[in-house]
Amino acid sequence: MDEPVRHLSTAECWAFLREHELGRMAYHLLDEVHIAPINYAIDHDPVTGRHSLLFRTAEGSKLLGVVMNADVAFEVDQVDGEHATSVVLHGRGRRLEEDEEHRAENVPLHPWVDTPKWNVVEIEVTEISGRAFDLSRPWQHMIPDAPR
Amino acid sequence: MDEPVRHLSTAECWAFLREHELGRMAYHLLDEVHIAPINYAIDHDPVTGRHSLLFRTAEGSKLLGVVMNADVAFEVDQVDGEHATSVVLHGRGRRLEEDEEHRAENVPLHPWVDTPKWNVVEIEVTEISGRAFDLSRPWQHMIPDAPR
Repeated sequence: MDEPVRHLSTAECWAFLREHELGRMAYHLLDEVHIAPINYAIDHDPVTGRHSLLFRTAEGSKLLGVVMNADVAFEVDQVDGEHATSVVLHGRGRRLEEDEEHRAENVPLHPWVDTPKWNVVEIEVTEISGRAFDLSRPWQHMIPDAPR
Repeated sequence: MDEPVRHLSTAECWAFLREHELGRMAYHLLDEVHIAPINYAIDHDPVTGRHSLLFRTAEGSKLLGVVMNADVAFEVDQVDGEHATSVVLHGRGRRLEEDEEHRAENVPLHPWVDTPKWNVVEIEVTEISGRAFDLSRPWQHMIPDAPR
């Protein structure tokens, strides 16, 4: 059979991240690993050519986690019939200073939930990779009106 | 306005996990946090009444990560029109011994990708919580054929 996993190029990974707005961030909090859904947008610095992720958050464990330990991982995926795509990145999270927060105004960052989130966090990406899978789900054909 | 976030009961969290089969695991690997999509199933011990998650994996960073540090977090979410649900759990990952691996045969654990995965990992759940959100996405109405 054909190889069921294809690796995405870096450009394909970024294009995929631009097409989506919900991911999950893994982060440290003291000696535990935590995970949370995150509504993000991609920022692009035209001078350096560098891409990064931005998100808004309230004071809480996510913000405390990245302030205490900047090491984070982030994942975005999509399942569509017989195919799935997953992009994973590693990076460094940091809270933007007040004079940088305007960057969040210039990207399509739309918090999905209408609760106050005053802090902007940037994830500077150090490593990104993506995989596209051909799914092997024969049992799906046995389920009437199976989801996705 | 109404409170846009509702907390799920523990029973609702488990029901949500049973209805899904794709989540993302956050785990330690040396001093870094990692994240990976995981195709899982729920196992239930009728004697103890205890629930846990099972998944299959090849030799690789996920298995190495949980063997070196059992602390993991796991997230499953669903976005559906104006509503989103996210369940997050913490737990301890461990590779099942050979004489326990039959447990993976007794649950609806269907690896989506047809690559060899000989190891079964169990996540013993120590903490579980879930949130249901009313989404505030007015811009969606401006996008023809917006996804989801």
